[in-house]
Amino acid sequence: MYLDSANTGQKPRQVIEAVDDFFRNHNANVSRAVHALGSEATEAFEGARGKLARFLNVRPNELVLCSGTTFAINLVAYSWALPRLRAGDAIVVTRMEHHANIVPWQLIAERTGATLKVADIDERGDLDLAQLESLLTPEVKLLAVAHVSNVLGTVNPVREICRMARKRGIATLVDGSQAAPHRPVDVASIGCDFYAITGHKMAGPTGTGALWAKREHLEAMPPFLGGGEMIREVRFDGTVYNDAPHKFEAGTPNIAGFIGLGAACDYLSSIGMHNIEAREQELLAHLTDRLDAIDGVRIFGRAREKAAVVSFLVEGAHAHDLATLLDLEGVAVRSGHHCAHPLMQHFGVPATCRASPAFYNTFEEIDAFAEALVKVRNLLA
Amino acid sequence: MYLDSANTGQKPRQVIEAVDDFFRNHNANVSRAVHALGSEATEAFEGARGKLARFLNVRPNELVLCSGTTFAINLVAYSWALPRLRAGDAIVVTRMEHHANIVPWQLIAERTGATLKVADIDERGDLDLAQLESLLTPEVKLLAVAHVSNVLGTVNPVREICRMARKRGIATLVDGSQAAPHRPVDVASIGCDFYAITGHKMAGPTGTGALWAKREHLEAMPPFLGGGEMIREVRFDGTVYNDAPHKFEAGTPNIAGFIGLGAACDYLSSIGMHNIEAREQELLAHLTDRLDAIDGVRIFGRAREKAAVVSFLVEGAHAHDLATLLDLEGVAVRSGHHCAHPLMQHFGVPATCRASPAFYNTFEEIDAFAEALVKVRNLLA
Repeated sequence: MYLDSANTGQKPRQVIEAVDDFFRNHNANVSRAVHALGSEATEAFEGARGKLARFLNVRPNELVLCSGTTFAINLVAYSWALPRLRAGDAIVVTRMEHHANIVPWQLIAERTGATLKVADIDERGDLDLAQLESLLTPEVKLLAVAHVSNVLGTVNPVREICRMARKRGIATLVDGSQAAPHRPVDVASIGCDFYAITGHKMAGPTGTGALWAKREHLEAMPPFLGGGEMIREVRFDGTVYNDAPHKFEAGTPNIAGFIGLGAACDYLSSIGMHNIEAREQELLAHLTDRLDAIDGVRIFGRAREKAAVVSFLVEGAHAHDLATLLDLEGVAVRSGHHCAHPLMQHFGVPATCRASPAFYNTFEEIDAFAEALVKVRNLLA
Repeated sequence: MYLDSANTGQKPRQVIEAVDDFFRNHNANVSRAVHALGSEATEAFEGARGKLARFLNVRPNELVLCSGTTFAINLVAYSWALPRLRAGDAIVVTRMEHHANIVPWQLIAERTGATLKVADIDERGDLDLAQLESLLTPEVKLLAVAHVSNVLGTVNPVREICRMARKRGIATLVDGSQAAPHRPVDVASIGCDFYAITGHKMAGPTGTGALWAKREHLEAMPPFLGGGEMIREVRFDGTVYNDAPHKFEAGTPNIAGFIGLGAACDYLSSIGMHNIEAREQELLAHLTDRLDAIDGVRIFGRAREKAAVVSFLVEGAHAHDLATLLDLEGVAVRSGHHCAHPLMQHFGVPATCRASPAFYNTFEEIDAFAEALVKVRNLLA
C-alpha cells in the first residue's frame, strides 16, 4: 500500500488520460502558431491555467506556471528578493521549512549580506507565534512559511501570520505544496504576497507547479529566465519584455503536464476539497490511534491542527531499517530527512519514517500498516 | 498535415506509453524513498539519464536534467557567466540565434557590464566565419551559437567554430535544440564547453531537456536554484551542496517526462539518426524544389548545409494570412518571428512562414502542401 503521498501523489485515470489525449490528438506548441492544432494546444494550456486559478481562488493572470514549488520560490528569491535586499536586511523562515523554502533564502542572503532568522516550534510541532512575532523587526523584509509541514503535518495559521507581517510592511511567501492537495485553499483570503504550489503532489503530473503573486509584484519584478515567450521584442540594442505572467514563463512550458494538472483540479474539485480534508482527517485520527497503541512508537508532531502526515520512529530502530522492512511487508512509507534537516536537528534524530495517507487510502490499509509495523518492531527489537 | 516539427515534435506511441506506464504502475518520487516503488522510479529516471547520455555520447554525470534548453542556457548564464564576467568582457552570439540564446546573455550583460557582439550571416544564411573569427578578441569570454538555426535550417560548423574559440581560451555554448532531433549528435567530438537540448522537439514529452557541461565547469559552478536534492546537508549556519549534476537539479524533477524522453532516445536510435537525417534531407530537397517552382515564393536561407527547415514568404502576402489560409487547407506551418527577432530585422520582414517536416512526413504531404500553397497564393494575389 502507498503511504507516501506527501512525497508525490498517485494520479487518477482522468489525469493520465488527459496527458495521453494531448499527445495523441492535440500535440503542438503553444502561443506560437496560428494553425488549428496550435490553437487547440494554447486553448487547453490556458484553460489549465484558468482551472488552477479557480482551484486556488486567484486570477489567472496572477499565476505563473512553472516546474514546481522549488522553481516558484527561487523565482521570488531571484526576481523579488535579490534586487531588493541589502546588507542588514533579514528574512524570517521557520524551523519546519522544507529545504526548498530555506536554501533559496540562504543563497540570496549570501549574495546580499542579508541574514536569516528562524522561527521556533514548540514540543507539539506548533509554531511559537509570540516568538515569531518578536522576530518581525524593522529589518525583516520577507517572511517565508509553509502552509502545512511536510514532516509534522502542522497546519500553520497562515492568515494570522500574514496579518502580523503585513501590519509591519513585511512581505510573505507561503509554501503551499502540502496544503493545496489536502484542504480547500483560498489564496485570496490568506493575505500573503506569494503562494507556491506543486502539481505532482496534487494528483497532477511531475514537472508542474505555479507561483501566485500579487499583480503589483509581478509587474515590478524584473524577468528571471530569458528566452522565448517572455519577450515582446528582442533587439540587440534593447529588449522589451512581455506582460506578467508570461514575462516569467520563458521557453516552451510543460504543456502536457499542465493540461494534466488542469484535469487534476477538475478531479479534486469534483470530489470536493472539503470532503478530501474530512476523509484524510479520519484516516489521520485512525492512523494516530493505531500507532499510539504500539509500544515503542514515537510520533513526531502533535500540532493542534494537523494534516495527514505522521512522522514516527520505533525505539531502538533506525528509520531506514524500519522503512526497508515495512517495504517487504508491502507498505511504502518514506524514511529520511524529508528535505528538512533543520527539523531533524531540532528533534536530535538523523531521520524519521513518515506515513502520509491521502483520500484514496482506506482504513483497512491503515490497519494492515499498523500490523506490519508491530511485526517489524518485533523483528528489530 | 503537420509541418511544424521545429516548433515541437510529434510523439511516438512508445513515448506516450512510457509516460502512461510510469504514472499507472511505477509512480513515486525519486532519490527520496527506500520503498520498492521509489526504487523503481529512481531506477527508471536515472536510466533515462543514461539513455540520453548515450544518445549524445556524453557521460551521465555530466548531464544536468532540466525543463528544456531555455533553462539549460539560463543555468549557464546564472551559474557560469554571472559570477565570472566583468565590465569590459564580451559575449559573442550570432544573428541567427533563438531568443533563448540571446536574452539570457543580455540579462547577464546588463548585470555585469559585459557587452554582446554579434556574428553576421551572409545572404545564403551561412555564418561569416572570417567575421566571426575577427570578433574573438581577448575580452570575449563566451561564444554562444546554435548548432542548427530554427529559422534558416543552417547547420553551423560547430566543431570548427569551437576550435577557433578554444584556441583563444573562449568557452563555447552550443544550442542543440534543432540538431539533436534531426541528425546524429556526438557532443564529445564537438569540443564545446556546454551543449543544451530540449526533449519536446526530439520526440519526448514537454518540460524536459538537459545541459551537458564539461565536468570541470559543473564542479566549479555554484548552485543556481536552491531546494531538495541539490544539497547534502542543510543547516542554518551553513549548507553543503550535493555533487553535480544533482547540485543543479533542485526539487522533484519531471520524472514521467524524463522516462518518456528515455523512450524517445530508444525510439530515435532504433530508427537510427543517420537514417532520420537522410530521410529529412530527401524531404527537404523535395520541399525546396516544389516551393522554388511556385512563382512569387521566396525562401529564406540557402545554407550550404541545411536541415529540413524552410522559411518562406509569398510576394504580397503577410505570413499570418498565408498560415491561416494554409491551415484551412489542412496544412500546419508556423508563421511569426520564430523567437528570432534579430534575424527578421536582418531580412527586413516582420515574420515568415516556416515549414519544418520531420522523418514521419511523406513526399505526398509535401506535394499536397505545395498544391495548397499555390491555391492560397492565388487567393491572396
